[in-house]
Amino acid sequence: MSLGDLVGYAAAFLTTVSFVPQVWHTLRSRDVSGISLGMYACFTLGVFLWLIYGLVLEAWPVVIANTITLALALAILTMKLRFGRR
Amino acid sequence: MSLGDLVGYAAAFLTTVSFVPQVWHTLRSRDVSGISLGMYACFTLGVFLWLIYGLVLEAWPVVIANTITLALALAILTMKLRFGRR
Repeated sequence: MSLGDLVGYAAAFLTTVSFVPQVWHTLRSRDVSGISLGMYACFTLGVFLWLIYGLVLEAWPVVIANTITLALALAILTMKLRFGRR
Repeated sequence: MSLGDLVGYAAAFLTTVSFVPQVWHTLRSRDVSGISLGMYACFTLGVFLWLIYGLVLEAWPVVIANTITLALALAILTMKLRFGRR
């Protein structure tokens, strides 16, 4: 594996798992007032399109990373919608 | 441009600009208690590595998208650190 590949895998890993602490923070605190609905609506749709893009190109690292990110972004978006109504 | 390319560009556009409403929301509200520091620390580092990856590969769309995302993520991280201390 080249150094470039290694940097790419590290980048994909970090930007994917970074949403785990946000899901955990929001699950525990139910504090969603500071989270932008516009951001998560737009981001979730964008990640869904990345997933489609990966499937069309049969680029499996893109598919795997974006499936995980989609699940995490959807969780945050759902909590924003549910907890925000209280 | 193929349909696949179009989906890719739409995906890149959405996941990049999605951070604009979060920056705006946080600038106005200064409400950062619901934002995870772990997420933005991890995400910002990951986007920085995507930028390095794009530079190594001379993949300019990756460089451009991640330069913009890095600026936005850094803005959110900085506000989390500054406003969080109040």
